[in-house]
Amino acid sequence: MKSEKIGLAHGSGGAESAELFDRVFFKHFNNDVIARLEDSAVVSFNGDGEKDEHSLAISTDSFVVRPLVFPGGDIGKLAICGTVNDILMSGAEPGWITCGFVIEAGLSINLLDDICLSMAKAATEAGVAIVAGDTKVIEGHSEDGGLVINTTGIGVLKASRLVQAPQPSGIKPGDAIVVTGNLGDHHAAIMSARMGIKNNIVSDCALLHPIIHALREADIPIHAMRDVTRGGLGTVLNELATASGISIVLEEESIPVRNEVKAFCGMMGLDPIYMGNEGKMILAIAPENANRALAMIRETEIGRDAAIIGKASSKKKDVSYIPVTMKTRVGGSVRVDVLYGEGLPRIC
Amino acid sequence: MKSEKIGLAHGSGGAESAELFDRVFFKHFNNDVIARLEDSAVVSFNGDGEKDEHSLAISTDSFVVRPLVFPGGDIGKLAICGTVNDILMSGAEPGWITCGFVIEAGLSINLLDDICLSMAKAATEAGVAIVAGDTKVIEGHSEDGGLVINTTGIGVLKASRLVQAPQPSGIKPGDAIVVTGNLGDHHAAIMSARMGIKNNIVSDCALLHPIIHALREADIPIHAMRDVTRGGLGTVLNELATASGISIVLEEESIPVRNEVKAFCGMMGLDPIYMGNEGKMILAIAPENANRALAMIRETEIGRDAAIIGKASSKKKDVSYIPVTMKTRVGGSVRVDVLYGEGLPRIC
Repeated sequence: MKSEKIGLAHGSGGAESAELFDRVFFKHFNNDVIARLEDSAVVSFNGDGEKDEHSLAISTDSFVVRPLVFPGGDIGKLAICGTVNDILMSGAEPGWITCGFVIEAGLSINLLDDICLSMAKAATEAGVAIVAGDTKVIEGHSEDGGLVINTTGIGVLKASRLVQAPQPSGIKPGDAIVVTGNLGDHHAAIMSARMGIKNNIVSDCALLHPIIHALREADIPIHAMRDVTRGGLGTVLNELATASGISIVLEEESIPVRNEVKAFCGMMGLDPIYMGNEGKMILAIAPENANRALAMIRETEIGRDAAIIGKASSKKKDVSYIPVTMKTRVGGSVRVDVLYGEGLPRIC
Repeated sequence: MKSEKIGLAHGSGGAESAELFDRVFFKHFNNDVIARLEDSAVVSFNGDGEKDEHSLAISTDSFVVRPLVFPGGDIGKLAICGTVNDILMSGAEPGWITCGFVIEAGLSINLLDDICLSMAKAATEAGVAIVAGDTKVIEGHSEDGGLVINTTGIGVLKASRLVQAPQPSGIKPGDAIVVTGNLGDHHAAIMSARMGIKNNIVSDCALLHPIIHALREADIPIHAMRDVTRGGLGTVLNELATASGISIVLEEESIPVRNEVKAFCGMMGLDPIYMGNEGKMILAIAPENANRALAMIRETEIGRDAAIIGKASSKKKDVSYIPVTMKTRVGGSVRVDVLYGEGLPRIC
């Protein structure tokens, strides 16, 4: 690592984050669970009987978003949705959640109350219980006080479900790549709020369980799934393609982006492929199930704008393996890499 | 709540923290698990079979201590010990831990590396696996960078153990109250480091499992136990006495405090009863087992200075119930209340 100090890019979810993980965290905390690098860790334990094995999914996230309240949500809703979504991605049923509050002195108690109400509402919607908490107060740096929330979630993986749990490495050649809606909404909403720009862009902050439940009810197997948050679609697809040993080819014109967000991106020089989302996921589905899956997803409130955006193909056997490429509108083909640089700090 | 803004006292672990909990967190997050107000939440779930019930202990803590490195430890060691100790207090075996890092830009990567090494060492000693993590980077406020670590721990409560798991409400009249060593070391070490005072005071930051394992091996039942951290002995004993519906009478001269810490307290006007510790616990033990338990505890490295400091008696049936009193050295009797005010900010 060239830099000797932590910079904002180390928290981007992109290339520098991965470098820090390898260099520091993975070096010290290396074990077979953390090495899998999934959104949730899956651990197993024996009950009292010998054959009695159980699996849990565990995920942790700290939320540092500014402003604390934004169009479409607040830090509390974001914290519950983000952690519940990570547990869902492992195929587990989220059960319990813990909340660690680090509050800057000066924060309004009424604002804290509103944020906790948002958390309680989202937890009820997700069917999880907030079971433990902790509060620390530190000196204030900002006049209105600041707040960081850590949420850690625990879910149970039923043995009957384990056999068909999706894996990051589960994408097969031919699979359709589905995104569950428009990209970039959260990123553009946070950035607009921070810059004082008035528009109608609203964060997509949402729980993803309705989509997973719909596909499960319809018995459509999911080969791989991941929520598209920090680092954006480009980073997430690179991770999954590499884990699965396949290549993904995207069709630029199929990638759904709201017109208002497109205009915002044009103005700001942003690429929706690297923008953070908080209520979107990608799924890899066998081609024969893809259209049926898409129809089911579009029937959910949060999946109305879902689209098939690309296809997995076999890994090419040459030395220049490119995990993700995109066919552009004008007929060219470009490499889609992971995010480099800081993206947007304090987006979640 | 009179104040409309969060103040440092809301994070003290004392009276104002309890008020904030009732006013905001408990109001929104109320469920039968969080209502128990223990260091760890205990939750149950069914495996695949119907009769197949399992219990987990879950605990979360955020660490904001300054300085990040202090005599006897660093924020990383503190984070693992603190969360593992909370899980241990429920009678569970700690299994897994998650780490959420919120880093201020500018933090030295070498320092982060040292802190992660401390975490890995403590986790290995405790027999827990660090299974999931998250890193966020925020703008720096201090020149050397800052760091907050959240650790959330999960332990398994074996059904065979459940029947004898200690409960905060488990203290019985006649029980001996044991403290496992000298009070005030962590608080005095942090305060000395922050004020640039040179002395030999070292934080007591340590894992508490050797004491619990020793008592378990000797088959000595523990009626109640709790680690003595923020808020100090006074606050913790009030919580347990109230939960158990008994009164506790302490003997001032039995409370162990290192001479150097006594001198420091005299100089600073501090009371060891309200000072934070990071490797001490109190236990309630039946009188017939108390001396044997004390001998076992004193055989452990971390329990060398353990002492019986008081006794539980029946709750008096008058309106002026006082949970904790102390017989002073000069023969008087004073009420020991919970901590009011901020204690020492950023002690853990």
